[in-house]
Amino acid sequence: MRISALAAEAGLPLATVKYYLREGLLHPGVASSATQATYDESHVRRLRLVRALTGAVGLSVQQTRAILALVDDPGDDLYTTLGRAVSALPPTVHEASGDDPYPRARAALEALGQVYDPQYAAVAQLEAALEATEAAGLPMSEDRLLEYGRHLRAIAAFDLERMPHEPHAAVEYTVLGTALHERVLLALRRLAHQDVAAGRIAGR
Amino acid sequence: MRISALAAEAGLPLATVKYYLREGLLHPGVASSATQATYDESHVRRLRLVRALTGAVGLSVQQTRAILALVDDPGDDLYTTLGRAVSALPPTVHEASGDDPYPRARAALEALGQVYDPQYAAVAQLEAALEATEAAGLPMSEDRLLEYGRHLRAIAAFDLERMPHEPHAAVEYTVLGTALHERVLLALRRLAHQDVAAGRIAGR
Repeated sequence: MRISALAAEAGLPLATVKYYLREGLLHPGVASSATQATYDESHVRRLRLVRALTGAVGLSVQQTRAILALVDDPGDDLYTTLGRAVSALPPTVHEASGDDPYPRARAALEALGQVYDPQYAAVAQLEAALEATEAAGLPMSEDRLLEYGRHLRAIAAFDLERMPHEPHAAVEYTVLGTALHERVLLALRRLAHQDVAAGRIAGR
Repeated sequence: MRISALAAEAGLPLATVKYYLREGLLHPGVASSATQATYDESHVRRLRLVRALTGAVGLSVQQTRAILALVDDPGDDLYTTLGRAVSALPPTVHEASGDDPYPRARAALEALGQVYDPQYAAVAQLEAALEATEAAGLPMSEDRLLEYGRHLRAIAAFDLERMPHEPHAAVEYTVLGTALHERVLLALRRLAHQDVAAGRIAGR
């Protein structure tokens, strides 16, 4: 298809598609003449990914480019690539240093019996989140940690079971699934609170 | 205690405490002379709440004031007050109108067998989150919805069981527990992904 048809198919203004081409977020089409190129389903799919990353996920063009590089070249060590891709997603947290930079996160992960890689951004995120609950006078108790951890591990196992085997698709699934499903999870938790509370009032 | 001791106790600059007093986020102390007032534990507690709401939760002074008004006057209908307090937390979502403004959220909540109150902000949040997953080509399947929903409902039941009975404390617990524990939940999910993936590689 021509670039105008591609833009229509992706639901984006033509100028935006051209901008993504210039910025290297979209791979070039196949030249069909000196001034025209042809695009296919791979371009539609890429535009959908770029739109999600720059729109709903809220990444900059530069951050999006970094994630696309991992999608395009997952390398041989998929585990490390997935970790890097997720670490490139918001929220951005301050990296600490020292002998034991994330003491609260370390203690929590030890209590949960989980692997602990301090290089992984989510460790610093957990540390900051636990610190904030403490400062607010509502620290995570051990029983709450174990209860949350148990259910989130079940959700994570479900997510991993459905991850595509093909490496490029696996990176794309992991990035989008992490960022976009997080918002679903938080809305569902608030709605579950309301439902449980309504049930108590009704004596259910 | 004097205002300087209060600021030290709360770990805040004196100017910030005075600012909160002027803005009405902190209740006045008891006048001990024409130019001095005495503060107590209730002021320390309030400062900790204000600091969490304006800091970690990221609310403006005006948004914080709205939540404090609900903490201070929960009224007779605690269920509605808690709903309003949580609806005042981020993310802010666009309110829709029409006969069926949130079709994806309604269908999801029907599948989960949960109450559906379109006035509640989390319904619009769920709609926006589901729309984003669809647009990205990764729509929530029914089995994923049911799996996420089941575990989040268990987490919500845990949260509600531990809610203080005293209404002022209940509003405070709900606001802080919703906003601050969300960040813990998301970090724990990302870390659970890593742990499950590491386990698969190791053949656990």
